[in-house]
Amino acid sequence: MFLIGLSPDIVYHSLLATEPNPEAAPLVLAGVLVSLVFIYLASKLGGELSQLANLPPVLGELVGGVIVGVSALHLLVFPETGAVAGDSVVVTILQQIAGLSPESSSEVFASFSEVVSVLAELGVIILLFEIGLESDLRELQKVGSRAAIVAVVGVVVPFVAGTAGLMLIFGMPTIPAVFAGAALTATSIGITSKVLSELGQLKSTEGQIIVGAAVIDDVLGIIVLAVVASLAKTGEVDVTNLIYLIISATAFLLGSIFLGKFFNKSFVAIAEKLQTRGNLVIPALTFAFSMAFLANVIHLEAILGAFAAGLVLDETDKRKELDQQILPIADILVPIFFVSVGARVDLSVLNPTSAVNRQGLVIAAFLIVVAIIGKVITGWAVFGKEKVNRLAIGIGMIPRGEVGLVFAGIGAASGVLDKPLQAAIIIMVILTTFIAPPLLRFAFQGEEEADKADLATANNQ
Amino acid sequence: MFLIGLSPDIVYHSLLATEPNPEAAPLVLAGVLVSLVFIYLASKLGGELSQLANLPPVLGELVGGVIVGVSALHLLVFPETGAVAGDSVVVTILQQIAGLSPESSSEVFASFSEVVSVLAELGVIILLFEIGLESDLRELQKVGSRAAIVAVVGVVVPFVAGTAGLMLIFGMPTIPAVFAGAALTATSIGITSKVLSELGQLKSTEGQIIVGAAVIDDVLGIIVLAVVASLAKTGEVDVTNLIYLIISATAFLLGSIFLGKFFNKSFVAIAEKLQTRGNLVIPALTFAFSMAFLANVIHLEAILGAFAAGLVLDETDKRKELDQQILPIADILVPIFFVSVGARVDLSVLNPTSAVNRQGLVIAAFLIVVAIIGKVITGWAVFGKEKVNRLAIGIGMIPRGEVGLVFAGIGAASGVLDKPLQAAIIIMVILTTFIAPPLLRFAFQGEEEADKADLATANNQ
Repeated sequence: MFLIGLSPDIVYHSLLATEPNPEAAPLVLAGVLVSLVFIYLASKLGGELSQLANLPPVLGELVGGVIVGVSALHLLVFPETGAVAGDSVVVTILQQIAGLSPESSSEVFASFSEVVSVLAELGVIILLFEIGLESDLRELQKVGSRAAIVAVVGVVVPFVAGTAGLMLIFGMPTIPAVFAGAALTATSIGITSKVLSELGQLKSTEGQIIVGAAVIDDVLGIIVLAVVASLAKTGEVDVTNLIYLIISATAFLLGSIFLGKFFNKSFVAIAEKLQTRGNLVIPALTFAFSMAFLANVIHLEAILGAFAAGLVLDETDKRKELDQQILPIADILVPIFFVSVGARVDLSVLNPTSAVNRQGLVIAAFLIVVAIIGKVITGWAVFGKEKVNRLAIGIGMIPRGEVGLVFAGIGAASGVLDKPLQAAIIIMVILTTFIAPPLLRFAFQGEEEADKADLATANNQ
Repeated sequence: MFLIGLSPDIVYHSLLATEPNPEAAPLVLAGVLVSLVFIYLASKLGGELSQLANLPPVLGELVGGVIVGVSALHLLVFPETGAVAGDSVVVTILQQIAGLSPESSSEVFASFSEVVSVLAELGVIILLFEIGLESDLRELQKVGSRAAIVAVVGVVVPFVAGTAGLMLIFGMPTIPAVFAGAALTATSIGITSKVLSELGQLKSTEGQIIVGAAVIDDVLGIIVLAVVASLAKTGEVDVTNLIYLIISATAFLLGSIFLGKFFNKSFVAIAEKLQTRGNLVIPALTFAFSMAFLANVIHLEAILGAFAAGLVLDETDKRKELDQQILPIADILVPIFFVSVGARVDLSVLNPTSAVNRQGLVIAAFLIVVAIIGKVITGWAVFGKEKVNRLAIGIGMIPRGEVGLVFAGIGAASGVLDKPLQAAIIIMVILTTFIAPPLLRFAFQGEEEADKADLATANNQ
């Protein structure tokens, strides 16, 4: 009886009857479709309002995500942040109008959330591929040493100041203090590069220094995370793994760029030989996904592989054509990432009626000051005779974004961080993420004023 | 210790430690990335070779799918077709180089396969959206009654001839014979429309009749399936549900086109007001996904909703711009669908050393003859004074594709079909799917000859 009126999809998925739950499959698709509709509505509403307010659209997408996410409407919630099927409005919709049974709800919720999560990850992979395509390898090499300085200063200063402050001012034990200090080191390359791109500043010297520094920072962040996590878990550092990580990260980035110079020509030759649809975009994504996979398996981040792939293909004659074709693909995938980041942010840590949160808010205030100052000063670490917008560089390094959440997550999982410190780190991540886009626009708008201030500082020294 | 060297993704996903298996998440992404690389390689190799052999590229993508799929290399296998983690080369790769533990293998395999399945479904949704955009509503309305005749004849003739033949020639009982007869009625709109598009024949009268008939056939197929499945399960037909299905399908298609005429103007107005990236493609996909969801929840197929959305937006001034932006999106998503269809085909049913298969092959030979003749003659059901390529229309209706597999699947699940009959239906599906693209190209190439033959037939009658 129940088969009457079922769409063929249902049956297709139960082919040979080995699927644990044949009812689930078309509902997973339905769940993904509704989630995407909510994500697109949130991203466009947020992005457009942000644009009208003369703020970077990506900020609006993040806020749109917060509104549809776990903090407000519950249209988009994820099992990883503790949500269950009953918390998801999408599940409720499927139960009300698509005949989802309560027994299958958890399974369907887990499945479509997983798909949306992977789509978001593909989104940030495409974003970094696009940023790689828009970046100029020669320009990056030119700013390489300056970017490295910015990255190193931006890791060392917040780490030392944060750890010392927590121990001296708040009297915290070493390990949680070190952990929270480490959480201050990250920079979200996704958010920063998206804002730069929106401001048309990606190809400026400042833009290239920021992107270069953010890439190096991502690698440094992975190393810091490994050290701190091992310290938190065993009380000592696993040196062998540490060396492996440093060598593989360096080898990957340099190797992929070096080998890329040879691959360039084969890529163009292949794309020109292919005659069927997608002759350019399919080989390009095959390369990008392979590199992302490679980065992923050597324990780097997939997005670093995609960025390297974009850098390599930027050097080819096909660049412009490829840029244009990646554009709509990025347009539909990237918002999934930003809205998801926003949706995972739980604003309830800001509620001051809870004692834990009040304690957290005080620590958070300290962490935020260190987080902002520790990154803003990196701009003044830039050497060279060329006049650069030092304030913009420093501000570009501020957002912790999803990388910061990683530290909060590992801290929660390993039990190193008590509740107030956890809340403080999350508040710091939220604030730095949301404050950086408008500040960055301001820093570039007030370019002349900043330069004057810069000169004044230099004269005072 | 194990945290050293883990990518932040891992930890991000274990945020708050509620994820059942934090190790799994980045490996799911890795599995999706490798699967996509295999899919793209298979689709491009197959598509290009097919093109070189002067065959439609989509045939090559299907064959490429068969080669990477369950029948040969096992690079792409799906749990729904009975594969377990140990059958998947992707799982082996993840175990060898990405540190996937044997305990997590099943979970990771299920998760990344689910994501790839949904990506394939999004691929066919985008394909039908694109076909809708390329189709002309006025042209479709003009051919509407002729398309309806083709669809009805193409359902009735194979159903009656197949059922009668199986009962009279092979002495089968009524219910399995009716079921196998029903499996002969389907037409895969995906494969047919893709070939038409590749041949540049989508906008021809023949192309529009075929697409229109395939859409109607899809709706009829869902109704036939519902009737047969209920017959197989309870021995009688649930009339209430049947009426609901017929009314909702008709209301959906007509209603969406009617309402679409009003929505058109709002869509253009919205797209023109939006100033951020994706101002055209995001509203378009929001609409397409909403319609696909709506179709899905009223137990139609999601692809019918996407097709209706494309038809509606085809009427707007933004059409050309939208066409161009959907192109690369379709280029990266559609091959996932065709390669997946190929990958799910199990060619072992063709192995004549098994007695069941030998029996199946004999029945298959009969089914194939009915399947081809029953659809080819639909071309001659087309009335009107306009001269049309009747052979091409008939051939366009031949491929059963994924829709045929649905019938095999439901038959296997409900126990109505014995092994030889199951195998026979699958063989019929494979052959009609793979034979149609080259035949269709031939029919359009030999257009003049076909017209002559057509005239000769007409004169003989």
